[in-house]
Amino acid sequence: MYNYWNSRTRGLSPYVPGEQPGDKKYIKLNTNENPYPPSPKVIEAIRNAAGERLRLYPDPTCQELREAIAQTYRVKPEQVFTGNGSDEVLAFVFAGFFGPDPAYPLLFPDITYSFYPVYGNLWNIPFRAVPVTEDFSINPKDYQTSSGGIIFPNPNAPTGKALPFQAIQEILICQEKQGRIVVIDEAYAAFGGESAVPHIMEHPNLLTIHTLSKSASLAGLRVGFAIGNEALIEGLCRIRDSFNSYTLDRLALAGAVAAVLDVSYYREINRKVIVTRERVTKALTQDLDFDVLPSEANFIFIRSSRQRGAELFAALREQGILVRHFNKPRTADFLRVSIGTDEEMDIFLNVLGKGAMKLTLKS
Amino acid sequence: MYNYWNSRTRGLSPYVPGEQPGDKKYIKLNTNENPYPPSPKVIEAIRNAAGERLRLYPDPTCQELREAIAQTYRVKPEQVFTGNGSDEVLAFVFAGFFGPDPAYPLLFPDITYSFYPVYGNLWNIPFRAVPVTEDFSINPKDYQTSSGGIIFPNPNAPTGKALPFQAIQEILICQEKQGRIVVIDEAYAAFGGESAVPHIMEHPNLLTIHTLSKSASLAGLRVGFAIGNEALIEGLCRIRDSFNSYTLDRLALAGAVAAVLDVSYYREINRKVIVTRERVTKALTQDLDFDVLPSEANFIFIRSSRQRGAELFAALREQGILVRHFNKPRTADFLRVSIGTDEEMDIFLNVLGKGAMKLTLKS
Repeated sequence: MYNYWNSRTRGLSPYVPGEQPGDKKYIKLNTNENPYPPSPKVIEAIRNAAGERLRLYPDPTCQELREAIAQTYRVKPEQVFTGNGSDEVLAFVFAGFFGPDPAYPLLFPDITYSFYPVYGNLWNIPFRAVPVTEDFSINPKDYQTSSGGIIFPNPNAPTGKALPFQAIQEILICQEKQGRIVVIDEAYAAFGGESAVPHIMEHPNLLTIHTLSKSASLAGLRVGFAIGNEALIEGLCRIRDSFNSYTLDRLALAGAVAAVLDVSYYREINRKVIVTRERVTKALTQDLDFDVLPSEANFIFIRSSRQRGAELFAALREQGILVRHFNKPRTADFLRVSIGTDEEMDIFLNVLGKGAMKLTLKS
Repeated sequence: MYNYWNSRTRGLSPYVPGEQPGDKKYIKLNTNENPYPPSPKVIEAIRNAAGERLRLYPDPTCQELREAIAQTYRVKPEQVFTGNGSDEVLAFVFAGFFGPDPAYPLLFPDITYSFYPVYGNLWNIPFRAVPVTEDFSINPKDYQTSSGGIIFPNPNAPTGKALPFQAIQEILICQEKQGRIVVIDEAYAAFGGESAVPHIMEHPNLLTIHTLSKSASLAGLRVGFAIGNEALIEGLCRIRDSFNSYTLDRLALAGAVAAVLDVSYYREINRKVIVTRERVTKALTQDLDFDVLPSEANFIFIRSSRQRGAELFAALREQGILVRHFNKPRTADFLRVSIGTDEEMDIFLNVLGKGAMKLTLKS
């Protein structure tokens, strides 16, 4: 049956995204979506773009969106690359800047976005997972070594822990001497942490990755982008234009422009997410005997002192709450919980309080 | 400046799409867009989908769209793969089914969709361009040989010439014996020609590629799909899920479902395109002394008996008409002209009549 697959296809271990339930019964705290709706300006822009002109190809250079991003992030449009979600941008980054010498593997943390090794396999890029410390931190010293490039999210996922730019700078300087790129995935930077974007002019080997999925409440629109030195952006364009000339449709372009420009709306909803995160962290730690890693993201990484991760995951699911469980040695006892609305998180805390007790009695 | 590019990036020769002018001054006959608007049901579906739920990820399996396609094409949803334009689907096809043995190169025509060699370079796939015949036909005998797989559009682009399924069947049988896949790109099949879709059950090595860009007037929405044996579809999913889990956004999914189901609207507008094509072909041949290849697509490939392709391309552009010129040895004297509305094509014919004379006098 599978004899038409080539060796690449046979060798892959595809990424498995968090569950997207078809019905609406669940409280969905499993894929780091923003609990608040997108800006009304985004909806309006999309409705205006939904018309006769859909018969025409979109602008393959995404000029208007790149200008909007440049304005909001105080960079030049030539320093911006846009794509069909940050996952696509990351796929192009792996294709364009890493590998192929096995003597110089790409480095990323052992506990991080689990798509990185998948991209590595797709593009045949040698890589090495560097263990995070006992307390789940990225140690900058571990990345000041010979490499084929560096990538990690800041804040990291699924831990939520962030590095100050100063620590990243040490890595950048060391890798620049070796001609290697350092990619900082800032998917969660809007919820705390320090963005590296203001430093792209000083570091030609710095590329930052961004998404509208989390901070702009637009996971359903599929828009991501990269900011960095012009030569890096041109490299990404070369890969994109060898893959699919038009990766962003007219509706996504229109919505994304409106989102990127409505800074004040998003600052406000993301501030609410941060306030809820801090409240939930406190309740879990003080009232429910959980370990909660200090998070600067829109999720928390938590461990119960009483129950295994898999057990708790299943119990929550039964109670109508979806969270994410990564069943690997170092993370098996943890759950990643996206920050929902205050109402959703109250239900979550309530279920945990009751459910934990019940399960403890059972076991 | 470019020292962070890896060897892949340095080695690429990216695809160059037809011009997308920012203003509206041109009569745009250069990228095979449909001159008629998308179905009103598509616009309505998109407007309904533009709401609060954009904060949530789309369905990564595209189940509803695959079911709609399955219904319209009389196949099973498991025989359908969807992607971000047929260009993305093709990129996954190259990644998943062709190469890597140089002794068995992928075969495609020398005059065909110019993205094929670009994909080949991106994924490091050995390929060989097989010359079309003197009259620009694909000769099925040329593809009944050892290969690493076969791909061509039917109707072919930019010639517009189609093969009957019987000819494709000979290729399929020969390649199946060698365990090779045959990919038929049916981007233009709605404008004539014979679709291979009804034969996917008989040929496990047959994959057909489709797009909503041309026949569904949705170039701006970026939706394409493949129909074939379940194992081929599963192979494409493996590549997709190692690249980007969510390639279709919620708006594109909603619009595409409505488009695929509104068969009668599209049959009607595409019939109009065919009627216009036949009228224009006749006028060019009989009144203006042009060679026009017999086309079953929504474009024609034409050659003036008086002017070089580059000259005519420039003259048309100056007169506000964009067409496509492929400046390669065998095609340099041709222009590919998309079929517009009757009004647009009358202007085109009128300009050609006058312009050709002027240029002849000048030279």
